[in-house]
Amino acid sequence: MMTLEIEQKLLKLIRHVHDFPKKGIVFRDITTLLSDAEGLALSAEAMADPFREKNIDVVVGAESRGFVFGVLLARELGCGFVPVRKPGKLPAKTISQEYTLEYGTDKLEMHADAIKEGHTVLMVDDLLATGGTMKACCDMVERLGGNIVGISFLIELAFLKGRDQLAKYDIHSVLTYDSE
Amino acid sequence: MMTLEIEQKLLKLIRHVHDFPKKGIVFRDITTLLSDAEGLALSAEAMADPFREKNIDVVVGAESRGFVFGVLLARELGCGFVPVRKPGKLPAKTISQEYTLEYGTDKLEMHADAIKEGHTVLMVDDLLATGGTMKACCDMVERLGGNIVGISFLIELAFLKGRDQLAKYDIHSVLTYDSE
Repeated sequence: MMTLEIEQKLLKLIRHVHDFPKKGIVFRDITTLLSDAEGLALSAEAMADPFREKNIDVVVGAESRGFVFGVLLARELGCGFVPVRKPGKLPAKTISQEYTLEYGTDKLEMHADAIKEGHTVLMVDDLLATGGTMKACCDMVERLGGNIVGISFLIELAFLKGRDQLAKYDIHSVLTYDSE
Repeated sequence: MMTLEIEQKLLKLIRHVHDFPKKGIVFRDITTLLSDAEGLALSAEAMADPFREKNIDVVVGAESRGFVFGVLLARELGCGFVPVRKPGKLPAKTISQEYTLEYGTDKLEMHADAIKEGHTVLMVDDLLATGGTMKACCDMVERLGGNIVGISFLIELAFLKGRDQLAKYDIHSVLTYDSE
């Protein structure tokens, strides 16, 4: 299949839910894509494609939706998967990173021994919105000595300008929405 | 590789963390298995093996750790994946199910249109402990008309007797611990 054909197919599988999580927001619901066998396979392949020759050591993804494509890309690329989790979930020694939300702050954790010095790391999430969560994940990976060779998203909401705070990275998005 | 050899390899990749989440508990930490490329591949294959000829329509897994092996098994079996989530996370019309914890109750949700009447469903999670979460997931799938053909776990803590409340299902666990 051609890239454009794959994009069209995936776009059709994403459900638009109006006024979720609050009035005026159009939520891109990927559960309709995940439950379709071809949608699941094509999206994982398209997200992995640019990184197949990059000798990735581990894929990193954040709880919960980053787990979905994170593990799929780890299998596509034949490498391991490292989870980023909410506080108190990881049992061994952790490092943590705070990040800013629309109102207040939140915190994420990684196991301190999850990334080895010099490891090549691919960061993965389903959606690039403002980029705050992904920035916090990248900061932790770099504090542990990881070498981030790219970030792969299924969907980018370009109008939220999440790329701005991730400008130093090689960002790949399969599907881009330019407006609500 | 022989089954026993795979089991030995996977057991070695699981880290035992003492006194987590509380004193006296030995936590089986699978993050050390997930970050190992061979561990990730072998565990997904072993969890899928008994169900390859069952014509599974969708795999169902619960937030968050059920997402990890849920999507991997969906790819192994060439089918779709349906997430069970905590309340308020799914954007479209949902059904919900309460279940009992050690203290109090908790609730899970699924999209009301996620399972079609008569669909063959494989339920997946990383760990079978008391079985309460899995029972709530199975109840929702059956309320939506799904036909549960099996449940696949990576790890079973047999001493917690989680099988008792899932007795009517075909349960497959790759690794079984008979005591703390």
